[in-house]
Amino acid sequence: MVIVMSPQAGPVELGQVQERLQELGFGLHVSKGVERTIIGAIGEKTPELIHAIEALAGVEKVVPILKPFKLASKEFSAHTEVKVGHVTFGGEQIVVVAGPCAVEDEEQLLTTARRIKEAGAQILRGGAYKPRTSPYSFQGLEEEGLKLLQAAGAETGLPVVTEVVNPKDVELVAKYADMFQIGARNMQNFTLLREVGQSKKPVILKRGLAATVEEWLMAAEYIMKEGNYQVVLCERGIRTFETATRNTMDLSAIPLIKELSHLPVIADPSHATGRKSLILPMSKAAVAAGADGLMVEVHPRPEQALSDGPQSLNLNEFGALLDGVQPLIKVMGRKV
Amino acid sequence: MVIVMSPQAGPVELGQVQERLQELGFGLHVSKGVERTIIGAIGEKTPELIHAIEALAGVEKVVPILKPFKLASKEFSAHTEVKVGHVTFGGEQIVVVAGPCAVEDEEQLLTTARRIKEAGAQILRGGAYKPRTSPYSFQGLEEEGLKLLQAAGAETGLPVVTEVVNPKDVELVAKYADMFQIGARNMQNFTLLREVGQSKKPVILKRGLAATVEEWLMAAEYIMKEGNYQVVLCERGIRTFETATRNTMDLSAIPLIKELSHLPVIADPSHATGRKSLILPMSKAAVAAGADGLMVEVHPRPEQALSDGPQSLNLNEFGALLDGVQPLIKVMGRKV
Amino acid sequence: MVIVMSPQAGPVELGQVQERLQELGFGLHVSKGVERTIIGAIGEKTPELIHAIEALAGVEKVVPILKPFKLASKEFSAHTEVKVGHVTFGGEQIVVVAGPCAVEDEEQLLTTARRIKEAGAQILRGGAYKPRTSPYSFQGLEEEGLKLLQAAGAETGLPVVTEVVNPKDVELVAKYADMFQIGARNMQNFTLLREVGQSKKPVILKRGLAATVEEWLMAAEYIMKEGNYQVVLCERGIRTFETATRNTMDLSAIPLIKELSHLPVIADPSHATGRKSLILPMSKAAVAAGADGLMVEVHPRPEQALSDGPQSLNLNEFGALLDGVQPLIKVMGRKV
Amino acid sequence: MVIVMSPQAGPVELGQVQERLQELGFGLHVSKGVERTIIGAIGEKTPELIHAIEALAGVEKVVPILKPFKLASKEFSAHTEVKVGHVTFGGEQIVVVAGPCAVEDEEQLLTTARRIKEAGAQILRGGAYKPRTSPYSFQGLEEEGLKLLQAAGAETGLPVVTEVVNPKDVELVAKYADMFQIGARNMQNFTLLREVGQSKKPVILKRGLAATVEEWLMAAEYIMKEGNYQVVLCERGIRTFETATRNTMDLSAIPLIKELSHLPVIADPSHATGRKSLILPMSKAAVAAGADGLMVEVHPRPEQALSDGPQSLNLNEFGALLDGVQPLIKVMGRKV
Repeated sequence: MVIVMSPQAGPVELGQVQERLQELGFGLHVSKGVERTIIGAIGEKTPELIHAIEALAGVEKVVPILKPFKLASKEFSAHTEVKVGHVTFGGEQIVVVAGPCAVEDEEQLLTTARRIKEAGAQILRGGAYKPRTSPYSFQGLEEEGLKLLQAAGAETGLPVVTEVVNPKDVELVAKYADMFQIGARNMQNFTLLREVGQSKKPVILKRGLAATVEEWLMAAEYIMKEGNYQVVLCERGIRTFETATRNTMDLSAIPLIKELSHLPVIADPSHATGRKSLILPMSKAAVAAGADGLMVEVHPRPEQALSDGPQSLNLNEFGALLDGVQPLIKVMGRKV
Repeated sequence: MVIVMSPQAGPVELGQVQERLQELGFGLHVSKGVERTIIGAIGEKTPELIHAIEALAGVEKVVPILKPFKLASKEFSAHTEVKVGHVTFGGEQIVVVAGPCAVEDEEQLLTTARRIKEAGAQILRGGAYKPRTSPYSFQGLEEEGLKLLQAAGAETGLPVVTEVVNPKDVELVAKYADMFQIGARNMQNFTLLREVGQSKKPVILKRGLAATVEEWLMAAEYIMKEGNYQVVLCERGIRTFETATRNTMDLSAIPLIKELSHLPVIADPSHATGRKSLILPMSKAAVAAGADGLMVEVHPRPEQALSDGPQSLNLNEFGALLDGVQPLIKVMGRKV
Repeated sequence: MVIVMSPQAGPVELGQVQERLQELGFGLHVSKGVERTIIGAIGEKTPELIHAIEALAGVEKVVPILKPFKLASKEFSAHTEVKVGHVTFGGEQIVVVAGPCAVEDEEQLLTTARRIKEAGAQILRGGAYKPRTSPYSFQGLEEEGLKLLQAAGAETGLPVVTEVVNPKDVELVAKYADMFQIGARNMQNFTLLREVGQSKKPVILKRGLAATVEEWLMAAEYIMKEGNYQVVLCERGIRTFETATRNTMDLSAIPLIKELSHLPVIADPSHATGRKSLILPMSKAAVAAGADGLMVEVHPRPEQALSDGPQSLNLNEFGALLDGVQPLIKVMGRKV
Repeated sequence: MVIVMSPQAGPVELGQVQERLQELGFGLHVSKGVERTIIGAIGEKTPELIHAIEALAGVEKVVPILKPFKLASKEFSAHTEVKVGHVTFGGEQIVVVAGPCAVEDEEQLLTTARRIKEAGAQILRGGAYKPRTSPYSFQGLEEEGLKLLQAAGAETGLPVVTEVVNPKDVELVAKYADMFQIGARNMQNFTLLREVGQSKKPVILKRGLAATVEEWLMAAEYIMKEGNYQVVLCERGIRTFETATRNTMDLSAIPLIKELSHLPVIADPSHATGRKSLILPMSKAAVAAGADGLMVEVHPRPEQALSDGPQSLNLNEFGALLDGVQPLIKVMGRKV
């Protein structure tokens, strides 16, 4: 790391900072400029140390040089494929995950599952525990929803993914689902990340509403540190000043993640845009940007959905979406 | 609510929307303009309904008219005082909550507790469970930390507040602490909010990094809906494009909350600014804006702190802070 | 528009608001709900009126129903093609605009112009007036730069586009360039927009750093209101909390503009990302999202560029970019 | 500055970077760590150089160490007082600037001017050139408005400040007004900044909607570089995701500016909040945070205002505002 001394700092402060850094085992290179002195400190460091040094008298700022993530980094591994049943994220295939925002009943789920399979989706999604802004909104069918998911998966042969929101439900969810989803609001629910990290099931980790790419990779690091390396990242839009779309889809995060990390990354245009009409063009764009998959909300009757109706495609629209994205997938050298 | 039909919508779509609204028990007023038709729909509505109607053919947008929060609203109650031992939030007193970011050991905590009490603080804070961006950072002493907190509270007579991050720890934390804190990252951890809502202990609910004032009040609503009305809101900065400060302190949220809600609201200038030198002016500003209290990070040796050193005041600086804020408190007609 | 009365408003306030609206020539529909009364007001309205009504006693908020842009809207025209010499924006062709951030000298510009033409670009860009954050940065060659641009255009047969920053330079720039560029910082420099609107030359209007799509279309409206309908919009990233990229490229703005407006829209991945390595994937994504063109910074020696070096492609990299984007262009049914 | 080499960079790239830096006259200190090499480069640098070096092969990033502003910095001067007639910004007095958003007619302006003077304001504001989001909104009375302003100033003895939006109007505006205002949308209209910098009149420089504190000080630097050091900064809210207020008032910018710069800084709670009811608490907070003045919109009949009605105080409300802020001003050791 690099320590920048303030212009007011004298030799006493400089000496104290050097002493402290040496105590902590760093090798030092001091550069005295006309206005400021900077210290290059070489060695292992923990995040605490960086902050503690910033609090020393005379220090203006500390610039970390190394990326804080290790297991999630490209240096740790060149490429990871995450397998869920017969489906592989990060391989040649563009994986399409589809289904309703919330599991509502057997008919809704089975109808959807059959139709998305027919259209070419490989994984069924559906929420049994719904984190909703309002306590008066529908909160999900809970275990009953998990059972319906498992049954729809068994019936159609599609692996199922579902969100887990409470650390104590991780085991229960693992009984019914093939893959966990960590939602945007829980991206920094570290207790939940650790719990999911101790499970053997693969995980879709959505980007938090206000999370930087670095913080997102650090959240993956929490899961991986517990031994579970089966993490798929999912870009689902960040919060900005723009209100014409529900969120702002940060597609540049996709090639950026590909540079920084070995983990597969998919895109969710339904939550990112919140507008039905934007799902097709943004799905194409996500594939063109290098996404390994798409996650899309589908409901047999969006106008009666208990959650996220306006951004859900109906069954025919979903078929048309996959048809529309197909040529892009091919031209990118991938397949559905 | 008001339903705005799209310019392309014809009489068939209009009829379908009216029919659906009548089915749902709404009274309707239709206004046909030159370019668009709008429908005023009068009646009880749940959040699902709003969204479902937005998904009907021909609907451009649905504008909700009523605020979504009820128990947290000014209409529900004019004013709430939250009592923690002999301390009252929302009364005449400006409540000062102070202590280290993380409980590290007995000496650190006791030294701090004694000194902040002497300086005029009324509540001791300290983290036993630390949600940290990096899994390699210090994560807190857990139950051992809770015990140290309880002991320091007993020794000094200060009530203690500490963060709870896992729903399953709510009971354990309640055994040792006088008040819960819900951190910014967990503001929409609804499972945790519900659990804390079922407890009898008062709660400090910090604003999420990217939470609107409305979402923040909805988070309070989750706690209150379970029966716990003892909620104190805490503004701690939001995430914006500005990087000169750690976050952007949104002080206008304080008088705005006072208009919308009956709950007390305090301010945390330590996290909001992340810069020691800004804590005094922003504490004054928070009091002037109408805050009911301040939450400040204090550490006997910030340069050795395991967490948040650069924004922590040392014991003398904390004394000077309270001296500096005192005249503002008086001129606002409040007292420490 | 819809006027929402506050719950405290009584019949007197309601009467006053109705009277005022009738004076202003609106037709009214009043809906009394349990908690609030809302008024649908039908008629022509100017922006002032909306605001003035919001200031009347008893009014909680005014919800505008109509989009504020007219000439830029889809209702005004279904589709617009903007012609610059033999090049057409908004037609079948994906228009590639390329060149250095700043014109530095004849050799730099001519080398670049020849090579980008060879690679397949259709328009040459280059800045003669550079709006720079620092007054100590290179500010451009001014008229000298315009002359070099014109000469390079004549030599290669490429039309040239250049930024104009001062209303009084509009005429001068028009003498040398085939197309104006309005930069992000000047998107709401209304004096400049009006001046450019009175010219006959086509305009690239870049989105402001913090501009909503609606404000961006209103800026186009300023130009069009003066009689110049030859406006091409350019998405170049917005400012958000994310610092890993220079800006956040809001690709969803492209299909959204296509829904709302008839104007062509292109994308600038150089400014949007600020990272060389992201230009190729984001160019592909922009084309897949429906962009009508790309604007890319190219410099023969980026490491010596006087402006924006790190995000400039060198001449070979630019060739590779066009090769890489080509298949996407084809699969979208477009051509270079 | 500090140059961080990428982990893949070998001795050749390192050599090239060192050579280039030596050519440019920098002194170098190289620190080789386990994963990365960093170079401390000591010497004069211009913004171009930093960027150009970032484009060299093998360079991961360049970290600038020095602040880019010079004339605006605390190092250049400890404290500046800006005088407008008999009024001084940055002295003991809290300067109150008040008046209508737009000058509409003689009666409106004179009534306002007399009453704000009586209430204790020291400077009259009023817009003659209005930058409006919509071209269909009232754009100001232009020179006619300037004449009314000058007359109202002469009649009441209040100096007048007004916004200038076009570089070519600077001279004209200077004939009538005592002080320029640069609005938020023009904070990076560098042509305008330079023009105003060549005038002798003092300037209020509003912060841009999406401008960092550093960019804001760089805008002041543009004015000062031309020889005009009479710059007063004005915080007026930044654009964030929060929509409950018109903008987010970043009060922490005030004490931060006081640390970084010698220029006076005032606050505009009218634009920052856009809500009448928040003006009093946020004016108090601004004074408590250390602001040198307040800028407030006042209109005799806000409900008929041609601009910004809902956030304008009427004449009695303005009197009450100053009464309410008075005690805070005193306790801060300042006076009106």
